[in-house]
Amino acid sequence: MKSSPLILLSSIIFAAIIGCQHTPTTDRNQGVSAQLQQKALSSPLAYDIVESLTVEVGPRLPGSAQDLIAVQWAEEKLSNLGFDKVYKEPVQVPVWLRGEAKAAVVSPYPQPIVITALGGSVGTPEQGISAPIIRFATLAELKQATPDDVAGKIVFIDHITPRFKTGKGYGITVGGRSKGAVAAAEKGAIAIVIRSIGTDHDRMAHTGMMRYQDGIPKIPAAAMSNPDADLLTLMLKRNPDVVLNLNMSPQNKGYATSYNVIGEVTGSSKPDEIVLIGAHLDSWDEGTGAIDDGAGVAIVTAAGHLISQLPQKPARTIRVVLYAAEEVGLVGGKTYAKAHQAELSNHYIAAESDFGAGPIYQIDFKVADDAFKDIQTLTASMAANGVAAGTNTASGGPDVSMLPSYGVPVASLRQDGTDYFDYHHTPNDTLDKIDPKALAQNVAAYAQFAYLMAQSNIELRPLPKPETD
Amino acid sequence: MKSSPLILLSSIIFAAIIGCQHTPTTDRNQGVSAQLQQKALSSPLAYDIVESLTVEVGPRLPGSAQDLIAVQWAEEKLSNLGFDKVYKEPVQVPVWLRGEAKAAVVSPYPQPIVITALGGSVGTPEQGISAPIIRFATLAELKQATPDDVAGKIVFIDHITPRFKTGKGYGITVGGRSKGAVAAAEKGAIAIVIRSIGTDHDRMAHTGMMRYQDGIPKIPAAAMSNPDADLLTLMLKRNPDVVLNLNMSPQNKGYATSYNVIGEVTGSSKPDEIVLIGAHLDSWDEGTGAIDDGAGVAIVTAAGHLISQLPQKPARTIRVVLYAAEEVGLVGGKTYAKAHQAELSNHYIAAESDFGAGPIYQIDFKVADDAFKDIQTLTASMAANGVAAGTNTASGGPDVSMLPSYGVPVASLRQDGTDYFDYHHTPNDTLDKIDPKALAQNVAAYAQFAYLMAQSNIELRPLPKPETD
Repeated sequence: MKSSPLILLSSIIFAAIIGCQHTPTTDRNQGVSAQLQQKALSSPLAYDIVESLTVEVGPRLPGSAQDLIAVQWAEEKLSNLGFDKVYKEPVQVPVWLRGEAKAAVVSPYPQPIVITALGGSVGTPEQGISAPIIRFATLAELKQATPDDVAGKIVFIDHITPRFKTGKGYGITVGGRSKGAVAAAEKGAIAIVIRSIGTDHDRMAHTGMMRYQDGIPKIPAAAMSNPDADLLTLMLKRNPDVVLNLNMSPQNKGYATSYNVIGEVTGSSKPDEIVLIGAHLDSWDEGTGAIDDGAGVAIVTAAGHLISQLPQKPARTIRVVLYAAEEVGLVGGKTYAKAHQAELSNHYIAAESDFGAGPIYQIDFKVADDAFKDIQTLTASMAANGVAAGTNTASGGPDVSMLPSYGVPVASLRQDGTDYFDYHHTPNDTLDKIDPKALAQNVAAYAQFAYLMAQSNIELRPLPKPETD
Repeated sequence: MKSSPLILLSSIIFAAIIGCQHTPTTDRNQGVSAQLQQKALSSPLAYDIVESLTVEVGPRLPGSAQDLIAVQWAEEKLSNLGFDKVYKEPVQVPVWLRGEAKAAVVSPYPQPIVITALGGSVGTPEQGISAPIIRFATLAELKQATPDDVAGKIVFIDHITPRFKTGKGYGITVGGRSKGAVAAAEKGAIAIVIRSIGTDHDRMAHTGMMRYQDGIPKIPAAAMSNPDADLLTLMLKRNPDVVLNLNMSPQNKGYATSYNVIGEVTGSSKPDEIVLIGAHLDSWDEGTGAIDDGAGVAIVTAAGHLISQLPQKPARTIRVVLYAAEEVGLVGGKTYAKAHQAELSNHYIAAESDFGAGPIYQIDFKVADDAFKDIQTLTASMAANGVAAGTNTASGGPDVSMLPSYGVPVASLRQDGTDYFDYHHTPNDTLDKIDPKALAQNVAAYAQFAYLMAQSNIELRPLPKPETD
């Protein structure tokens, strides 16, 4: 086996670090960190895990039969990989069934368009609904509209999601998906169909969660593909009177029990202190949940496994949490925070992998201001794996995003998300979108991160106070 | 407006050509050809035409209501663009309705897979069919199989279509689509599902025509997306007993009348002699038929229009033929050849644009061996538009491919098809896949080709005899 440039660079940086820091413990930690990187980069384990999940389980909508198959899969996988403790914790999850979703332009240019129901949406009456559409460039524009212009119509929000390495384009447009139905119904619209929150040009629509609000009518909500949004816009340029027919049969079916699945590598000297690395086990249903979030499941599971195989276990416990029902409202994350509230003071730090399988280029923290420089020094060796030091403004990832409010420090291992929103929440979320090399780089980063955090002597609390507006 | 490098290069080559060729007619022809190129490259007309067709008509399956809307659209478009004669000729087309097509792995790893019915396929019984699958790497492998191994099963042909600029990968694998159902049924299979004939990794399946054979049972035939074929292959590696459920409701509905729509620029001195440039008006139904073959419709229509706007019409008649029902068996092309049989001796040359909107890089002919060098000299100025001289082995394109057997010379303007089979016959065949600049380059090439052929004094017949094996 030839040494890769990353591994060679790692050795150089490791040598530089042990040249500067003189305690034997620190030297040993950095040595182990470099070994973990090397092992991770040459291991096919994470790819094998995500292949197993997508092939043997496939899509796993919260509360579905496949969701429970995924729970069983996860328990078996963690057990077979030699985690010291494997257990599951119940999570009450909302159950939503997709049903069918069809749409067609009725006039002036009859032709079908491709849509998908947004998660949580109600259906149309069985015969469907037909109404003129009214286009808004953004959610903000819809909010400023006159109710008389909107009442009785189908709202069309045509906001294009821009492409960024950070994925920040999603934040710009996703409000139309999550809040559009309420804003439209408040003005009397009878349905809403948004341009997909996605950066691709594929004729497939991006699903994702939407919300209703008590006291405001629940109207059907769907997304159309980007080419279909282009099509409607070109029709409207020719003729402002475009009538759309929508026929959707999703159903909200109450609640079911799913589970957060947890595997632990028990700490050698501080077993009650927790370094949490998480991902979410559930997925949307039209792909196989490979990048969202099979990749994350594979990354943190493989990272935990690599640490479990070390000759000497780290001081703190590494807890791998595979959350339930992230997609439908961070339900597993919220349930975990509540169930573990008494224990959260023992959570040294937490991070979730939930942004596909693109390479990690930066690590951000949210720790005590006094600790930030030290924690950057401790993790400087991650640069050999392409992970630069970042900011102290991390959120940690969706399922751990509520932990800082309980005082728990978090980290965000930033991935290159340039193409993430090409595939996110579509049928295209399949195994072939994962680059095994980039996936292994993620495993290396999480393994190094988790190990170094489990060995760290730095006091990470108290967190800086949140900025107020 | 700045001159583009192509236009400048064109002027240089034009100057070189008129420096070498001394008859005033030839000089004038090359001058007009250079003007046509320049006008085409700066005109948005072709893009406007394909936008109009995809937005105002959309998909147009032969014999459907939208097919007749397309015929009306084409007549109006040709008339509005000032063609001297616009008319249509009836074509009896087979009518096939897609219905629904669903598939799911029943065991050992239950999950849905994405399929589409192949054109012409029969449906399954209403309750669907479930059976073990048997995988073959190629159609040839299926043909060698023992009937005992195949009987009662669903055949899965897993042939991967390789990517080539010429598109020749399609020719390698498409037999599995067109002939797979007969080969499978001959050995007792109850259905066939092939890996899509496509070079993409999108979770959408490629449709396309399949054929049955008298005396052999008609079994349902579908294609699955490439990621789904990967999925089944990975399942089969884990467990050879994979049971698939198929539920398809396509219907063959007899015949209907559609039309070849024809527009002519009447020749000034040899009006009975025809230079035919064609494309097909029909399309598959899941995209909007932008690249297949809205692009071709736009290219030949815009080329004809440009020639119609010349101060002096060319000698021969330019006949733009928009064929019906190419997708379901070259029906419009065959009908044209039959209806015009008496006139085919007056067809100077024919060419069809039916390979998307990628740039043309080469022109091939099928003309008399004695004429080949002269016709290459006559069209040498096309090199300024990126079109190199090619071979004397052209087929001319699907709807004119039968004309050489009647003695009619043909040309093939070869397009870069590197990404054509990413989108071909899928929902992804939409307007955004067309690059307006490449489309305009095609228009320039067809306008130059048609004009030069209409002015040519070269005797192109008799055609070389077909090679025999």
